[in-house]
Amino acid sequence: MAAAQVPPETAAEAARLTVGILGGTGDQGRGLARRLARAGNRVIIGSRDAGRAAAAAASVGSPPRVTGAANEEAARAADLVIAAVPWEGHSDLLARLAGALEGKIVVDCVNPIGFDARGCYAIGVPEGSAAEQAAAVLPGSTVVGAFHHVSATLLLDPEVAELDQDVLVLGDDRHATDLVQALAERIPGVRGVYAGRLRTCGQVEALTANLVAVNRRYKAHAGLRVTDV
Amino acid sequence: MAAAQVPPETAAEAARLTVGILGGTGDQGRGLARRLARAGNRVIIGSRDAGRAAAAAASVGSPPRVTGAANEEAARAADLVIAAVPWEGHSDLLARLAGALEGKIVVDCVNPIGFDARGCYAIGVPEGSAAEQAAAVLPGSTVVGAFHHVSATLLLDPEVAELDQDVLVLGDDRHATDLVQALAERIPGVRGVYAGRLRTCGQVEALTANLVAVNRRYKAHAGLRVTDV
Repeated sequence: MAAAQVPPETAAEAARLTVGILGGTGDQGRGLARRLARAGNRVIIGSRDAGRAAAAAASVGSPPRVTGAANEEAARAADLVIAAVPWEGHSDLLARLAGALEGKIVVDCVNPIGFDARGCYAIGVPEGSAAEQAAAVLPGSTVVGAFHHVSATLLLDPEVAELDQDVLVLGDDRHATDLVQALAERIPGVRGVYAGRLRTCGQVEALTANLVAVNRRYKAHAGLRVTDV
Repeated sequence: MAAAQVPPETAAEAARLTVGILGGTGDQGRGLARRLARAGNRVIIGSRDAGRAAAAAASVGSPPRVTGAANEEAARAADLVIAAVPWEGHSDLLARLAGALEGKIVVDCVNPIGFDARGCYAIGVPEGSAAEQAAAVLPGSTVVGAFHHVSATLLLDPEVAELDQDVLVLGDDRHATDLVQALAERIPGVRGVYAGRLRTCGQVEALTANLVAVNRRYKAHAGLRVTDV
């Protein structure tokens, strides 16, 4: 596994980031908060309800490393913001925070997927992907897609010291994707791999449905590694 | 990397298959023909032009192991057929062969992708995916999606003894997906991994656009491995 080719100054910048996590009371948000805080980043968990955000923060760390706040306050106080919100309401929630998120990198990790009797499937998104929908409602932010395939169960499991997977990072701004690759690599075992422009994010989000199928068939917490990189 | 959990009798069945490859004169088709023939399968390369099929066959092996034929003859003579045809004309070509393909497993490895000044992108498919389009025009066949991400360059390179990647196999018939997983595993270094129903094949096909972006960024022939399986 080769190095991810992120400039060392970008890795240093990632280490200094205060990361806001919108919708951070869910398993994915708490899992990312836990791992990033353990890596040394300051993390602010956001929620519609500041009290619930504080409780989620307390479940994965302690102040000043991990704190909770209302989503808007988390967005304003953070250097970089991860949107780990439910697909339902994704567009509305981000649109309301457009002012607070202006000028910031917003990392969308939302997977528009559904479940029925035949299993998991991808939900069609008019904008092409959750990430492109975020970009449409956040014209003043730089949207990056990442962290779609990271298992919340593994992120939250204290017995899992290292993950075994790459994080695919998508976006149209080279510094932003480099920075998010470097941020992903602060999670032990994770490598950040650039995987294309934002317009190709839909299939990466949708692929989560396939990983769910893999998990069901093989009783696994599947992730992906990119070979020959 | 765990075993792929394909029954041994299915692996034995895969070893006995005569494999037809429609559109087998392209790099992907020739590459698969070369690797499967070297593994011991009989392979019939199909083309609109039987003469071109014979020339492609001669470029990757020799009779009786590898032969060439017109697409329809290749489809009739094979036990299992891989569709490695261009996306342009995919539906029409398969529809014309529906009779010859009746009762057979058809493995679709076609990636509906395009290129423009900004790189590679996925082409929207009304049926959801090339594989579902194949299933729509081949009601008497069992369609499986697989081999989307295998690099033709690596398949054809005599210096590459083993590939380093999993082949994601999608379909709604368990015996068919097991058999195609076993067939994929006849290529050295490849593991076949079940990755969901046919309705989730669109994102697997589209992900080829992301692997093209990876290849450009990292000067690689990227493949995927599924972790924790």
